[in-house]
Amino acid sequence: MADKEKMTIIVFSGEMDKALAAFNLAIGGATSGMEVTMFFTFWGLNVIKKNEGGIESKGIMRKMLNFMNRGGAKRLPLSKFHMLGMGDWMMKKLMKDVNFPHVEELMAVAKEFGVKFVACTTSMGIMGISKDAFIPEVDSFAGVATYLADAKESKINLFV
Amino acid sequence: MADKEKMTIIVFSGEMDKALAAFNLAIGGATSGMEVTMFFTFWGLNVIKKNEGGIESKGIMRKMLNFMNRGGAKRLPLSKFHMLGMGDWMMKKLMKDVNFPHVEELMAVAKEFGVKFVACTTSMGIMGISKDAFIPEVDSFAGVATYLADAKESKINLFV
Amino acid sequence: MADKEKMTIIVFSGEMDKALAAFNLAIGGATSGMEVTMFFTFWGLNVIKKNEGGIESKGIMRKMLNFMNRGGAKRLPLSKFHMLGMGDWMMKKLMKDVNFPHVEELMAVAKEFGVKFVACTTSMGIMGISKDAFIPEVDSFAGVATYLADAKESKINLFV
Repeated sequence: MADKEKMTIIVFSGEMDKALAAFNLAIGGATSGMEVTMFFTFWGLNVIKKNEGGIESKGIMRKMLNFMNRGGAKRLPLSKFHMLGMGDWMMKKLMKDVNFPHVEELMAVAKEFGVKFVACTTSMGIMGISKDAFIPEVDSFAGVATYLADAKESKINLFV
Repeated sequence: MADKEKMTIIVFSGEMDKALAAFNLAIGGATSGMEVTMFFTFWGLNVIKKNEGGIESKGIMRKMLNFMNRGGAKRLPLSKFHMLGMGDWMMKKLMKDVNFPHVEELMAVAKEFGVKFVACTTSMGIMGISKDAFIPEVDSFAGVATYLADAKESKINLFV
Repeated sequence: MADKEKMTIIVFSGEMDKALAAFNLAIGGATSGMEVTMFFTFWGLNVIKKNEGGIESKGIMRKMLNFMNRGGAKRLPLSKFHMLGMGDWMMKKLMKDVNFPHVEELMAVAKEFGVKFVACTTSMGIMGISKDAFIPEVDSFAGVATYLADAKESKINLFV
């Protein structure tokens, strides 16, 4: 730990392409010996939600918001080509074509190499999402203070 | 000042959710003793525009652009859920629900803790916006050189 | 080289406004004596594609994807105001109005000041784009490991 170089990535976006970029960077960092932490916030929380539906949330609007944001690594949209969902399907086909791993697989690889996943408690509060909505791979639940303490000591800090 | 750790945030986006994230990070930094500067550029200028209408701009297209970008912290859209403006309204209701502060309130808190607001003069030039379009909380008007001088000495630099 | 301060910018987005911001930052860094590297990935690859059509790609879906992403600095859309393409045209007119350089011109200036352009080989693989689709100004083709080695030594790292 002592002198291990650090890297942090804030995953703000819930889009597949941005998630792919974030995990690629994280895995790259971890495999090159860095200590990498990913902070999932706002729509980025969708990336680390369970794929199964049925997230408990209080209030009808939160229910709606959470339904529209069911999330789970399998359901992430693309930041481009929303039209008719064509882009997503095409992108997934293309990635399969070249044997590029899915977000889910990259997530598993990232975990294997020790990348830490932190879910932002502030966003969870706004959106009314409780801890059990998330995949077990999430290491901790924390706010901005934790992020900053980490980022201050990091060589690379990105907001994706 | 001497050894105070620094942080910079470029606010490129004019969207409410990204602005919330930026201010949360800035306030977190400032309350933990960092010297934080936010550089508002392009659509991010909307965040620090006055809520009142009537921005003076020359030329009919600039007038149109500025009308469509009236901005002001009260008017920021969300980066998701544009459809029918449903998302904005829902998000605002949700935030109210959990007593989460609005962008405007976060902005006031950020100022109180000494976060510096800088408006990008290059973007102002392109968009034809003059200094009086902005809220008085803006500390200075500057270009990329000022940003870089600051960012070079900062522990954390983010582009939101 | 020895003590030259470094800066890296990941250009993930293929949008004109974000490209403008990225090149402005890169040029600012280079003219202030920094060694700047821009890593073009995902939609950001559009920025450094040749303006001429006719990119070779295998498979019908890749052909479609590449047609929709013909790219080239002349064709970049805006991140806002997609509707009817109004925004792009308006923005370009406004920039011309104030004599603000186009993406293409900024790119040339960046090259002149020694900014390095790197195309992400992972994204190229997914999208089925070969090296000859890119403008000759691209200095090298590399993956995340190259980026990280550079970013670790940099004072400023941004994801645009």
